[in-house]
Amino acid sequence: MDEKISLIPLGGVSNVTKNMYLYEYKDEVLIVDCGIGFADETMLGVDLLLPDISYLLKSKKKIVGLVLTHGHEDHIGALPFILPQLPQFPIFGTPLTAALANEKLKEFEVGSRVNPVEFGKGQLSLGSFSLSFIRVTHSVPDTSHIFIRTPVGNFYHGSDFKFDLTPADNKKIEFDKIVAVGKEGVLCLMSDCLRSEKEGYTPSELTLAENFEREIAKAKGKVIITTYSSNISRLNQAIKAAQKFGRKICFVGRSFYKVRDVAVDLGYMKIDKGSEISVEQLKNYKDSQVVLIVAGSQGQENSALSRIANGDSKEIKINSNDVVIFSSDPIPGNEISVNNVIDSISQKGARVVYSEISSDFHVSGHAAANDLMLLMSLLNPKKVLPIGGTYRQMVAYKELAKKQGFEDGDILLTDDGQEIVFTKSASSFGKKLTLKKVYVDQMSGEEVEHFVLIDRQKIAENGVVIVMAEIDSETGKMVNSPTIIARGFSSQESATLNKTLVNELRNKFSIKTERVNDWIYIRRLIGEIAEKNIFKAFRKRPLVLPVVVEV
Amino acid sequence: MDEKISLIPLGGVSNVTKNMYLYEYKDEVLIVDCGIGFADETMLGVDLLLPDISYLLKSKKKIVGLVLTHGHEDHIGALPFILPQLPQFPIFGTPLTAALANEKLKEFEVGSRVNPVEFGKGQLSLGSFSLSFIRVTHSVPDTSHIFIRTPVGNFYHGSDFKFDLTPADNKKIEFDKIVAVGKEGVLCLMSDCLRSEKEGYTPSELTLAENFEREIAKAKGKVIITTYSSNISRLNQAIKAAQKFGRKICFVGRSFYKVRDVAVDLGYMKIDKGSEISVEQLKNYKDSQVVLIVAGSQGQENSALSRIANGDSKEIKINSNDVVIFSSDPIPGNEISVNNVIDSISQKGARVVYSEISSDFHVSGHAAANDLMLLMSLLNPKKVLPIGGTYRQMVAYKELAKKQGFEDGDILLTDDGQEIVFTKSASSFGKKLTLKKVYVDQMSGEEVEHFVLIDRQKIAENGVVIVMAEIDSETGKMVNSPTIIARGFSSQESATLNKTLVNELRNKFSIKTERVNDWIYIRRLIGEIAEKNIFKAFRKRPLVLPVVVEV
Repeated sequence: MDEKISLIPLGGVSNVTKNMYLYEYKDEVLIVDCGIGFADETMLGVDLLLPDISYLLKSKKKIVGLVLTHGHEDHIGALPFILPQLPQFPIFGTPLTAALANEKLKEFEVGSRVNPVEFGKGQLSLGSFSLSFIRVTHSVPDTSHIFIRTPVGNFYHGSDFKFDLTPADNKKIEFDKIVAVGKEGVLCLMSDCLRSEKEGYTPSELTLAENFEREIAKAKGKVIITTYSSNISRLNQAIKAAQKFGRKICFVGRSFYKVRDVAVDLGYMKIDKGSEISVEQLKNYKDSQVVLIVAGSQGQENSALSRIANGDSKEIKINSNDVVIFSSDPIPGNEISVNNVIDSISQKGARVVYSEISSDFHVSGHAAANDLMLLMSLLNPKKVLPIGGTYRQMVAYKELAKKQGFEDGDILLTDDGQEIVFTKSASSFGKKLTLKKVYVDQMSGEEVEHFVLIDRQKIAENGVVIVMAEIDSETGKMVNSPTIIARGFSSQESATLNKTLVNELRNKFSIKTERVNDWIYIRRLIGEIAEKNIFKAFRKRPLVLPVVVEV
Repeated sequence: MDEKISLIPLGGVSNVTKNMYLYEYKDEVLIVDCGIGFADETMLGVDLLLPDISYLLKSKKKIVGLVLTHGHEDHIGALPFILPQLPQFPIFGTPLTAALANEKLKEFEVGSRVNPVEFGKGQLSLGSFSLSFIRVTHSVPDTSHIFIRTPVGNFYHGSDFKFDLTPADNKKIEFDKIVAVGKEGVLCLMSDCLRSEKEGYTPSELTLAENFEREIAKAKGKVIITTYSSNISRLNQAIKAAQKFGRKICFVGRSFYKVRDVAVDLGYMKIDKGSEISVEQLKNYKDSQVVLIVAGSQGQENSALSRIANGDSKEIKINSNDVVIFSSDPIPGNEISVNNVIDSISQKGARVVYSEISSDFHVSGHAAANDLMLLMSLLNPKKVLPIGGTYRQMVAYKELAKKQGFEDGDILLTDDGQEIVFTKSASSFGKKLTLKKVYVDQMSGEEVEHFVLIDRQKIAENGVVIVMAEIDSETGKMVNSPTIIARGFSSQESATLNKTLVNELRNKFSIKTERVNDWIYIRRLIGEIAEKNIFKAFRKRPLVLPVVVEV
């Protein structure tokens, strides 16, 4: 009988996030990535998802190791939740990836366990698997593709990437390695497909630096730049531009601090001595002397940028000669939140630059159609399997593969939990795992501060609380007492909950005196205050449903 | 003292929908448009908004007339709710606009009252106002701009438009009239600004016809086209292409039937005899013999397309050689719903064509930057005032106006409820009305079937019901009994409600046996079933909050 190897995606196929892939050979399992997913609007009260690892827990097979492709949340974020449930095994990632993953583990008081592996340090052996890390480019430095040699055949794990020929950090894509492993032979290429719908090539980050400089040069007031905290090369470009014009840099939002510390430590970020100031020091400088790098580019509830836009920040007010640059695109589903933040800032008279009016400040970190076809051409694999995209993007990838001469049977469209069994020459669909959604309830705030795993039993145990509040749209103040409806609390608890929550909310909403523009922000703020209060009083995390009535 | 005229927007400024504008001169009021708004995600349980007409109700001033610019919901949809509250006055619109508005009035059992006025029929006198209708192009035929002569000065009410030089219905824009009224003198141009952020000119509809033909020619199975029901010229192009290839046309979704009837009656839509079939007749034809025009291009809950995509339609199943064309773009906020529908269809193997992968099947109905500047150039007004866009789009319009040489003081950015007082030579901000949000609770379904006005007192009276259901993701079936939490019902009512709702939901969710892709659809379906049931049993419309737990 032919030797076999299985690929089982636990997450990342037919959806973009929650990446986790198992390569199974005999009694050995190699894991690639371990990321979180982001909840959508149907999942009221929960924010994050984890891959379901029931199969790994039940399986008697031996995990020979875990490797990480890059340092983004949807590839490393589930480590603190999942590692404590599994036996010991070695974990590897490129230096920055390892550092970011270890930082995350420390945050949750799980020990650092990820070993840094340099590009070009030869092969890494984990059981029967032999791995090479290949440098590619993406929106975080040290992103790699992983070439996986197995006794059955070789796999090219080509997750999130773009082909940036002029990367901001000047660390070039290892095309030579890609071509070499292609010559060695690739049984299956697992490929990023998120931008398979977009024609042509994804542009380089390079031009953004000039564009930042141009904006900073002509700005009369503060320059506020918002982007993902993980986008280190983007942050570097903003820092460089600020320093060129002698402006002080101020990071606003906790999500930036950790990334900055890790990146500065390892030399991935350079900030001249004395050129960074804290939020508290802002008052000592004129608006024209600072560049603020602010968290909240997706319009997240209670992010630094939302607070500033809604007039809730003590230290930072928007003035009419400020310019606010969104160096990011809204993720589908976030459009309304982002639009509300843009509108709130626009109404304060500041100039806002965002992707609809200028493509100068954001380019994608993912490969477009031509890049994807180029990777196929360089590798010449027997089979291709799109990962990291929705089903429609997998279908678009299939069209590209057909143009490259692949037969229908060699283009594998699959789904989370579906095993694909490879022999040296063929592939077939194997067992289908039933994966359940595993929710993580993220305590509010822009930063991951406190997590608690919940599942349906826990929802039942923790109850449900509806908070119905009337808010005056002219002043932002709460009118009358909010109505609290609780289920899953004793009558005494309910009475306590009602009293404390009503007081707390009335207090918090008695100070504000600003016309309400962003109702999503208000609704989330109420939800967050309620969650914090209930947790403090009862150590419970019920499903909180805030309902706002505008009066 | 100088004579004065006031403009008061009751809706449509700093938001896109709910258009209603008052022009006040002495004791006379002219109303332009009377549209509904669409609720956003913060407004749980309500779907539509109306302009707040408290000012009109309190004012002793005389309404001399109401004129409509075009037949879209956000310009005519509030008529059935608002007219019964006001005294009699004449109402005018161009022929199709009048017919669509009268159809809407009939539906709500308010008598037909809108008088058709042909383009080029000279001036219409309403009190001291003298009006001319000017033909422009938009995504519904007979769209007009309205030139309003007043004793103080002339206003150009330039709401929703584009400059399509090759319109599908061959009815050309009346540029001669635009230039003529420009020469006569325009005190203020009120201008559409929705696409002010987009560079260049908005393309013509013309190329779409060829693209439909190409798709139909090569399709082996059914061709399914989805678009807005109001987009009559798009429907005409689809019909023409279907007829060219001898395919039968089948409209699916009630929202199309009324529009088709009105448009066919007035000669705005031509369907060859015998070429239209009903949904019931579909079974008599092969897939390759039909083109389906299906409602639900925005992924709306329970729309025909969502039902088909989720396998809930008896008559229409998606096959792998079908092609589904989205001839529309998602409206911000609908991205996730639309993406879910696309994914569900893709997984059934059909080819799906949508804006990200092809711009061949949708162009906007709104003017882009150059079109907007062209209108300014043709009219040469003293002042400009952007309408029909969000604040950021108003800001983008301001930048265009500056490029056209307007001074800051002559670019009027305003807000709903803010009076602007014009004299012959100047303008100033007047009183600010406090407008409350007026909600309309639209009974579920893709079609507006039944409305009830609710306000916060009514929410309190009608109560709140939470429905928490566990759904098996593999089969779509309900697991266990749903939990019902009601507030605002007597204990006896609660018991009845609990019993009937649990039974109804368990029944409805016992038949389905299909893997769940679209959780938003499931959640909304549960909400809808609950709403219908509760209304039937208690004649109450509580706020229903469905919570779905995936198991």
